[in-house]
Amino acid sequence: MVRVIGVWRRLLQLSHQQLNDMPRHDGRAANQLRPLKFKRGYASAAAGSVLVEWGGTIVLCTASVGTDVPPWLAGKGRGWVTAEYNMLPGSTSPRKARKPDGRSTEIQRIIGRSLRAGVDLTALGERTITVDCDVLRADGGTRTASITGGWVALRDAIASLTDETGAPAFAPTAIVGDGCPLRDTIAAVSVGLVNGEPALDLDYPEDSTAAVDMNVVATGAGELIEVQGGGEGTTFRRDQLSAMLDLAMEGLTKITATQLAA
Amino acid sequence: MVRVIGVWRRLLQLSHQQLNDMPRHDGRAANQLRPLKFKRGYASAAAGSVLVEWGGTIVLCTASVGTDVPPWLAGKGRGWVTAEYNMLPGSTSPRKARKPDGRSTEIQRIIGRSLRAGVDLTALGERTITVDCDVLRADGGTRTASITGGWVALRDAIASLTDETGAPAFAPTAIVGDGCPLRDTIAAVSVGLVNGEPALDLDYPEDSTAAVDMNVVATGAGELIEVQGGGEGTTFRRDQLSAMLDLAMEGLTKITATQLAA
Amino acid sequence: MVRVIGVWRRLLQLSHQQLNDMPRHDGRAANQLRPLKFKRGYASAAAGSVLVEWGGTIVLCTASVGTDVPPWLAGKGRGWVTAEYNMLPGSTSPRKARKPDGRSTEIQRIIGRSLRAGVDLTALGERTITVDCDVLRADGGTRTASITGGWVALRDAIASLTDETGAPAFAPTAIVGDGCPLRDTIAAVSVGLVNGEPALDLDYPEDSTAAVDMNVVATGAGELIEVQGGGEGTTFRRDQLSAMLDLAMEGLTKITATQLAA
Amino acid sequence: MVRVIGVWRRLLQLSHQQLNDMPRHDGRAANQLRPLKFKRGYASAAAGSVLVEWGGTIVLCTASVGTDVPPWLAGKGRGWVTAEYNMLPGSTSPRKARKPDGRSTEIQRIIGRSLRAGVDLTALGERTITVDCDVLRADGGTRTASITGGWVALRDAIASLTDETGAPAFAPTAIVGDGCPLRDTIAAVSVGLVNGEPALDLDYPEDSTAAVDMNVVATGAGELIEVQGGGEGTTFRRDQLSAMLDLAMEGLTKITATQLAA
Amino acid sequence: MVRVIGVWRRLLQLSHQQLNDMPRHDGRAANQLRPLKFKRGYASAAAGSVLVEWGGTIVLCTASVGTDVPPWLAGKGRGWVTAEYNMLPGSTSPRKARKPDGRSTEIQRIIGRSLRAGVDLTALGERTITVDCDVLRADGGTRTASITGGWVALRDAIASLTDETGAPAFAPTAIVGDGCPLRDTIAAVSVGLVNGEPALDLDYPEDSTAAVDMNVVATGAGELIEVQGGGEGTTFRRDQLSAMLDLAMEGLTKITATQLAA
Amino acid sequence: MVRVIGVWRRLLQLSHQQLNDMPRHDGRAANQLRPLKFKRGYASAAAGSVLVEWGGTIVLCTASVGTDVPPWLAGKGRGWVTAEYNMLPGSTSPRKARKPDGRSTEIQRIIGRSLRAGVDLTALGERTITVDCDVLRADGGTRTASITGGWVALRDAIASLTDETGAPAFAPTAIVGDGCPLRDTIAAVSVGLVNGEPALDLDYPEDSTAAVDMNVVATGAGELIEVQGGGEGTTFRRDQLSAMLDLAMEGLTKITATQLAA
Repeated sequence: MVRVIGVWRRLLQLSHQQLNDMPRHDGRAANQLRPLKFKRGYASAAAGSVLVEWGGTIVLCTASVGTDVPPWLAGKGRGWVTAEYNMLPGSTSPRKARKPDGRSTEIQRIIGRSLRAGVDLTALGERTITVDCDVLRADGGTRTASITGGWVALRDAIASLTDETGAPAFAPTAIVGDGCPLRDTIAAVSVGLVNGEPALDLDYPEDSTAAVDMNVVATGAGELIEVQGGGEGTTFRRDQLSAMLDLAMEGLTKITATQLAA
Repeated sequence: MVRVIGVWRRLLQLSHQQLNDMPRHDGRAANQLRPLKFKRGYASAAAGSVLVEWGGTIVLCTASVGTDVPPWLAGKGRGWVTAEYNMLPGSTSPRKARKPDGRSTEIQRIIGRSLRAGVDLTALGERTITVDCDVLRADGGTRTASITGGWVALRDAIASLTDETGAPAFAPTAIVGDGCPLRDTIAAVSVGLVNGEPALDLDYPEDSTAAVDMNVVATGAGELIEVQGGGEGTTFRRDQLSAMLDLAMEGLTKITATQLAA
Repeated sequence: MVRVIGVWRRLLQLSHQQLNDMPRHDGRAANQLRPLKFKRGYASAAAGSVLVEWGGTIVLCTASVGTDVPPWLAGKGRGWVTAEYNMLPGSTSPRKARKPDGRSTEIQRIIGRSLRAGVDLTALGERTITVDCDVLRADGGTRTASITGGWVALRDAIASLTDETGAPAFAPTAIVGDGCPLRDTIAAVSVGLVNGEPALDLDYPEDSTAAVDMNVVATGAGELIEVQGGGEGTTFRRDQLSAMLDLAMEGLTKITATQLAA
Repeated sequence: MVRVIGVWRRLLQLSHQQLNDMPRHDGRAANQLRPLKFKRGYASAAAGSVLVEWGGTIVLCTASVGTDVPPWLAGKGRGWVTAEYNMLPGSTSPRKARKPDGRSTEIQRIIGRSLRAGVDLTALGERTITVDCDVLRADGGTRTASITGGWVALRDAIASLTDETGAPAFAPTAIVGDGCPLRDTIAAVSVGLVNGEPALDLDYPEDSTAAVDMNVVATGAGELIEVQGGGEGTTFRRDQLSAMLDLAMEGLTKITATQLAA
Repeated sequence: MVRVIGVWRRLLQLSHQQLNDMPRHDGRAANQLRPLKFKRGYASAAAGSVLVEWGGTIVLCTASVGTDVPPWLAGKGRGWVTAEYNMLPGSTSPRKARKPDGRSTEIQRIIGRSLRAGVDLTALGERTITVDCDVLRADGGTRTASITGGWVALRDAIASLTDETGAPAFAPTAIVGDGCPLRDTIAAVSVGLVNGEPALDLDYPEDSTAAVDMNVVATGAGELIEVQGGGEGTTFRRDQLSAMLDLAMEGLTKITATQLAA
Repeated sequence: MVRVIGVWRRLLQLSHQQLNDMPRHDGRAANQLRPLKFKRGYASAAAGSVLVEWGGTIVLCTASVGTDVPPWLAGKGRGWVTAEYNMLPGSTSPRKARKPDGRSTEIQRIIGRSLRAGVDLTALGERTITVDCDVLRADGGTRTASITGGWVALRDAIASLTDETGAPAFAPTAIVGDGCPLRDTIAAVSVGLVNGEPALDLDYPEDSTAAVDMNVVATGAGELIEVQGGGEGTTFRRDQLSAMLDLAMEGLTKITATQLAA
């Protein structure tokens, strides 16, 4: 039926607004996000932690602070932010075995790059913050939930830092501001071509049938950090890329607001 | 102060009941459990799943059903139950690296043996059920939470089994009963010698200072499945072992009731 | 000095053509590719092989045909194309140790996805083609050289396939055409922001200082397959993304022509 | 036949002494140990070594002294004792492949904990003693032979320690005494329920059919160090646990005497 | 002093016999073997086993029979013989960590090749015999003890083979004879240049200072199977190679006699 | 037919020269090398590099200089030379999987030992030179090409060394001479028994059918460094060993000349 909608839309020359009013398999409009919630402090042993519930997806993001930096940064007075991503075995069906996995490696590299883009590593000082993103339930968008929630955990970890006197290392009001390692909020969302039409924030049924799946990471100021997308066995045109980016930027504004409200 | 209590008790010849009224660092009596809650169906992709919150400890237990059995069981018409145990990096401080770990191996073997003791593997048929226990927050008693919650997830996974017609493989009422692979409930609890006195259900501050840490696994009928305990650099007497087992059996009765109420 | 050029350009409102006439550190215009050569049949034991020399970068791409498919495809009558990427230890300085490496994993997944987008896996039949990309000398653009050369090796491997009578499985003229698994040529190129300006086909000195590094994969027909880019510690605007994509599409046309001429 | 004995015993109300006079499959009484021999100094390159022959089981225990301690002990002036357990491929049939193995991990952790319970790690100073237990022939009780022989090797390694002048670090007479790191002898033995009756020191045919298999570790003074037992698919009662512990303590007295005589 | 002997010998034109009368650090003549003993059946679970004591070196060789063959031999009606070599951690000082090790890999390949040279793999039938060589005490010559003892264990394993009726697969008298997989005895010995002079069967002090260390494997009939030698930082002349081979062949005759007498 | 030649030769008492005029499967005489070429500087990031084309075999050898030495050499003022050997997946058919491999381990140990024999490690100073030998096309003799080419890369790496002032560490004329770490050229060649007759420099068809395959490593002065040979399922006589060594020494003289001309 959705193919019919695609054809029908072209016949009727539906406006973008009209399209967004069309329901998806779960009744959402093309530009509609799934419900997004953050439970901060969920894993209290970590310096920062948040349980992200985004539609049917649940990801636990924790940020731990270590005093070592990678060998290539030793003695340079700069810090490092890195990420690890993992799906728990029971988060999907059939069960996912606990073993290294190329997809996880690729995703955790994107999470790490994205978060580093929002941190002034020199202001951070010689510390490593590791953001762990463990997927408890996988229903699409686990990497964007990881980046979005990872930033919340990272912010709380940075707010918890102290100097040698035990005082906060950065003024609380300075979080996302001057003199503080955090330069801006960072959020991510997926977009794709579902039955030929752009759609925002794909869930698992959409993701697994989408012709194109794209992840867009941006700052609260609307600057792009990472654009990464493609498909299995399909191609796409530049006007479709443009329409997907429009949807993504619209969604990211709402996601950033939810992050800051958390 | 607790040392003083130990000395004082010996001087005063306090009865067991009197001792149990003495507060611990968190105000509990010696025979008092921490609050225990189960959220069933938390990871809905798995056949059975439960989020166990036991005091400050949170463990996600999922039970996944596979159609293969280990090579040594192939073609024998019997099934298998196995377990994997893992602490998430941010569940403790300092961060726990993601790498194989002797303690986890030892714990997951105990979980697997304990759960198998309550399952009729022939009645189960040629299936493997893998119970994954991932610790989200570690505050002592993660292995007993894993066994206790693992049984709840296992029960739900067995209840979800279907025969070739798609009908339930086992009558729902038969769960824990005749013709069903589950023979009885299975629960576990820790006991230890804290400042020289037996105490039930140790939390992390107690566990890390306890002279002896013992885990007791039993059926709902009060039969023992596994007794495993010892200490780092300490020894204990048989009368102390006996007192610890008394506390454990008392606690297991309450835990079993909570399991069945879940 | 290049910053000065950036400022100067804005002052003078230089046209795109004028900018492209500006030299880079190696004297190239912004839209100018490095010299690209293919030596087909270099590793004659493999069904397809090509030595790619692209500026100072040398990559050996081989395509080997196996009769197995991954477990999840078994018995479905479809084939698979996968890729492995590796930098030889002496291809860079300091020496790169021989050990698994997240960057290589990420790159080989992109190579595999890109090549699969150009192959009809059902037409291929139950075969796996593994495209190995080994970097002999690394001077920027190793992943785009791998995709571009990988397609040449893949084409030769497909042309070498025989049916059960020993006859070619696909009519030689059908390569890139009807009834043949290859749907179109596939090529890739990098673009980036070098000193704030878009530039095509970055070499190592540019790549390591570029604010943004983006890889664009497309078919000979100009359809996009994968767009992947971002930066370390930087952000970019949508108009910059658009300018980079313009440069990429221009470069890809020339690269495709070189592939077909090989 | 042994089942018949079990029934018969209940009918005849046999006393414990009478039961112990009943032969097992190898003619032993319930409380009878298999022959136990120690060959000290077998692997002369190690600071301490002993070949343990215990019935049909042969284990080579060596204790090697290193000058490093684990990272978490660095600079604290304390030492460490750790153990590794391994079955040689030809020690059992079918051949055991050389690969990491959960059972070995579990066993070597119990060996390490047991030996540490008998050592004053502060008196030991900043040294690590590694006790390697390699099973040459496996006929039941390999873990208890490892603990029991491991203590003999450990004692010889401690006796070999020298201070910076090359003089013995601890007075020879002080071994197992004041000022010396060894606090007491340590020995281990297995007990189980064989055909429903408690039996001491199970050999392989008994171990593989026993309903319950329990390992008891204790000091020469009769203090418990570790109690670990359970079964595959079976349960046991507290009175059975008590009867097994009685047998174990009786056996451990004889084993300790053999250790000291070695 | 030994250098003096070398010079002196050249001056005095000592005969080979005279040289062999010269003592080495342990009083042996140049052509004198260390005492060699075999204890057959040491690890009784394995089809063939022997404890080799060769001077201060002790190696346990076991031969296990499996019904699988490597994938490349499947269905060809031929068997396989392979070897694994391992030094136990306490066999040397400082302790050798349990981890894969290039030297062990190299040695076990030589053992496997050497033993295969004496077996008719077609006569063996579709079986794999794995010869495990575990070094309990290392005092030089562990690889030659492994080959020499490995052959004894291999012979016993082949003698234990039965056909489908349970009768011996090969007539006992046929061991090393017609119709039997064993073509001849196989033995190995080391030779080297110690202080410039050829010497047979180096122990550890000689091996670690020898300019050249060479291993010679031959059949009982005196045919060569493997010659492998060289040195660290040294070279040798063809006449020295020839002198070393003379010593080796002389030693191998005695070793073969000891094997057959075992 | 070749067997006939062997018989015929014995009947006719052919001279060595006459035998060498007999063609092999590729028309070569028994003592004839395949064409050998070196392309120095192929991988320009490495301190030394050479592409070796030897008949149908292509190996890339690179030599990289590091400032660390292995732990056991730390602080002794000496350097180290080590080698790694690897066949690229497409260098042979069927494709060779990228995974650790006993044959490669054995070969790289021989390469390392051979190259160290020609280097004064004390003169080298506290540096590690790693010689990487990656096989791009395998047609027999890859290990001898690796040693022979490895020496060329090693020489160039040593020539590139500088002291703390940036001046060359060793006088250019001193390469292979006084005060320089290189003591002599090092080259390697294979010999074997092909159809019962000695032959020099086996290619893959010969190597895979040869009864004996032997590798000989020697210095330019004609001193032996390593002799390693044997066969699968065959034996050889001392006179055959001698004839093979004659061929090898003859070939090595030509190879050394080609190395020095490179």
